Amino acid sequence: MSRAHPDLDSLAFLVGTWKGRGNGRYPTIEPFEYVEEAVFTPGPGKPFIAYRQRTRRAGGGEPLHSESGYIRPGGMDGAEMVIAQPTGIVEVHTGEIDSNQVCFRSRDVRLSPTAVEVSQVERRIKVVGDVMQYRLWMAAVGQPFQLHLEAELTRV
Amino acid sequence: MSRAHPDLDSLAFLVGTWKGRGNGRYPTIEPFEYVEEAVFTPGPGKPFIAYRQRTRRAGGGEPLHSESGYIRPGGMDGAEMVIAQPTGIVEVHTGEIDSNQVCFRSRDVRLSPTAVEVSQVERRIKVVGDVMQYRLWMAAVGQPFQLHLEAELTRV
Repeated sequence: MSRAHPDLDSLAFLVGTWKGRGNGRYPTIEPFEYVEEAVFTPGPGKPFIAYRQRTRRAGGGEPLHSESGYIRPGGMDGAEMVIAQPTGIVEVHTGEIDSNQVCFRSRDVRLSPTAVEVSQVERRIKVVGDVMQYRLWMAAVGQPFQLHLEAELTRV
Repeated sequence: MSRAHPDLDSLAFLVGTWKGRGNGRYPTIEPFEYVEEAVFTPGPGKPFIAYRQRTRRAGGGEPLHSESGYIRPGGMDGAEMVIAQPTGIVEVHTGEIDSNQVCFRSRDVRLSPTAVEVSQVERRIKVVGDVMQYRLWMAAVGQPFQLHLEAELTRV
């Protein structure tokens, strides 16, 4: 069986399968509520966490967003995250770990030719016991950087 | 149940779970052989294919590489691919579809601060019946663009 790499100790609070609800808003869209499943899995014997998530519209609705990527330790109290999205977006983040929370700020957001423009993303994740709360800020489609998503998930 | 989006018709030849073997070489490393599992799954009702793969050293060896991302149609006879790797690398590709093959060329490769330098990637995938062959060329760590990986997988 695979074990988590010891360098992952500082990020171990993320590991698990998480389910819950969130809500989103942005000046260019109607506010919406969603249900989410997010999975953080330690790499087999390697110092990274594989991350994937999916959301659906709350109330048994249609699939909304999904994304996948990897989180790895990097630097003192630091972490790095890379993410790909089916909308044609990739993000490279550096993060600061503070006990049971981590804040990732994008240093690079890149787009495929037909993707919608996103220029900056920040992701804050906090875990207390079996509850994960996250918020995501974004500058996109010419709008200023602002809160886009917040959600609360429970470890299942 | 989810169905593949009709815009995915030109990429449908990729869909499935594939297993097989490959080999890699690069001037900076010893040649190696690997076993691989790759999964291409249509997005639920959306025009993309989710992609993930993992390799291990051939002969029951240790985990080697993994990556995940998304492929989507884009432009006439075209496709786009975004990929994240646990080594801290993201790739944005544009691709040309020619019947049962697709060639993706990187237009952007971006790195997290502690990642090894990769500057250019090309991925050619060909499917004949239940056999997938792919080759991957790469410019990395100061070496010129050259063949790095080739593999043959079977649909399972």
